[in-house]
Amino acid sequence: MSFVLKSTEERARLWKPMFASELPELAFHVWPETGDPQKVRYLAAWQPPENLAENFPNLEVLFSVGAGVDQLNLASIPENVRVVRMMEPGLGEGMIEYVLWAVLSYHRNMFQYARQQAAHVWKGAPNVSSSLFRVGVMGMGALGTPVLKKLSQFGYVCHGWSRSRHDIPGIKSYAGPEELDDFLAATDVLVCLMPLTDATKGILNKELFAKLPKGACLINCGRGGHLAQDDLLLALDEGLLSQAVLDVTDPEPLPEDHPFWNHPLITLTPHIASSSHAETGGEMILKNILQFEKGAEMVGEINRSSGY
Amino acid sequence: MSFVLKSTEERARLWKPMFASELPELAFHVWPETGDPQKVRYLAAWQPPENLAENFPNLEVLFSVGAGVDQLNLASIPENVRVVRMMEPGLGEGMIEYVLWAVLSYHRNMFQYARQQAAHVWKGAPNVSSSLFRVGVMGMGALGTPVLKKLSQFGYVCHGWSRSRHDIPGIKSYAGPEELDDFLAATDVLVCLMPLTDATKGILNKELFAKLPKGACLINCGRGGHLAQDDLLLALDEGLLSQAVLDVTDPEPLPEDHPFWNHPLITLTPHIASSSHAETGGEMILKNILQFEKGAEMVGEINRSSGY
Repeated sequence: MSFVLKSTEERARLWKPMFASELPELAFHVWPETGDPQKVRYLAAWQPPENLAENFPNLEVLFSVGAGVDQLNLASIPENVRVVRMMEPGLGEGMIEYVLWAVLSYHRNMFQYARQQAAHVWKGAPNVSSSLFRVGVMGMGALGTPVLKKLSQFGYVCHGWSRSRHDIPGIKSYAGPEELDDFLAATDVLVCLMPLTDATKGILNKELFAKLPKGACLINCGRGGHLAQDDLLLALDEGLLSQAVLDVTDPEPLPEDHPFWNHPLITLTPHIASSSHAETGGEMILKNILQFEKGAEMVGEINRSSGY
Repeated sequence: MSFVLKSTEERARLWKPMFASELPELAFHVWPETGDPQKVRYLAAWQPPENLAENFPNLEVLFSVGAGVDQLNLASIPENVRVVRMMEPGLGEGMIEYVLWAVLSYHRNMFQYARQQAAHVWKGAPNVSSSLFRVGVMGMGALGTPVLKKLSQFGYVCHGWSRSRHDIPGIKSYAGPEELDDFLAATDVLVCLMPLTDATKGILNKELFAKLPKGACLINCGRGGHLAQDDLLLALDEGLLSQAVLDVTDPEPLPEDHPFWNHPLITLTPHIASSSHAETGGEMILKNILQFEKGAEMVGEINRSSGY
């Protein structure tokens, strides 16, 4: 039986000796090399090869090397194949850094000062204490929870919204569609950290923006598909929102002539908020294979019906 | 006897009732109104009125409403007048936010991404873990110490340099001129939080920049007078430094035609890193007056010979 890695050279270089040491009986192949396709039991990839059922009839587990699995067409993956996403501590660290940077930038008027610098204007803006600044995070999972905890430690008033209620000390949890309006009304900075599913696609749209306090800030660290792009442009132009910080777009890379690039109230970063550390990512997959082989639960396994 | 406040309207509005309640026997005047100048015992100001000795012959304490006293010409202040700077918790909070924002911005390549956005370039840069990122703070006083603690909690490798050695758990303390070179050699991001004195004027100069690792980042939250401006421009152009973040300049406001405004590697903010919260600032001065009246030590009193 064998493992196939379809990913970066760095991962291949780091993971091969780790696997050889921990699971010497498992052949390790680096795509496009696969050995005998009949023997492939595990596959790790961002985008898996096509026609999995035909090409790898004995595949049992597909590991995503990213935090999400929305890049996969789950319908095309054979039903018996289990799908596992990456749960790696480095993902949380990077996301905490990014969201705190974005919240601080907005709270302390740094986007405004950047515009003023371009215009040679030296003028301080009023400074609001972090204890009066309300941050709302949509998605209270493996990324949303550590982000909420850190922002709260830092003095911001934090609350989260999720499908189900979450119990995090000091952080108000809003749950389900019936509590979304109250969550939005209490949010000066909205951070999107949800998984992208049929239920959350396009959720950041004009109806949602209209329920935020006028002049709120949007930080999207989820997926480009969460955002209705034309609605964002309109909300910024009409003053419903005063700033957007986007780490994700649809498509990526963002086309060179896209209106987001030049918009004075949009800050773009190229999907860098968080990435799994290559080494610990390999350790996570190794551990999950060992779990799987003894019939135990894997960390990060996807519920194929909810999609996350 | 009386107290004269020469400052903002907000401070006057907030402080007057506080003083009336705690020190009803002390007359409270708002500049330019002073009552009988002979009766003025206390004065709070950023820039005090001229000719203090002649105009207020019975002045005993001058309170600065800012964290520093470098805006004062100490030589022009009568020797018997005691000088006290503002030590207010809000000053520390604001500075922590600013420095963490600047360090995160540099560490996570946000200045580079802003330049890329202007050029419509979508390209991720390598991400270094905060645990490999070395931040050195010059000045380990009332602002430097809380900043070092917070950065260290956040995962950065932190060390400080000061005139005398400071004992902060987990933070290496370099002391005196003989340890400055070692401090600089171990610093990827240099943060200036020193008081401005004759000994520190122009200390951020080409000799110092040359002792940092090539491509380091400078964050100046001290005073504009710490920085040799032409040396900074040269160091950026030669690649000795890769980025500068300046909250202070000399003079302020920065003249409209100054080369800092347009420099692609300089980020400017208009002296907003930290300001004392008006309300707690008034409480600090009230407490110090009560201390002074019973002959006890005041918090933040300046040593007239060292200048801080």
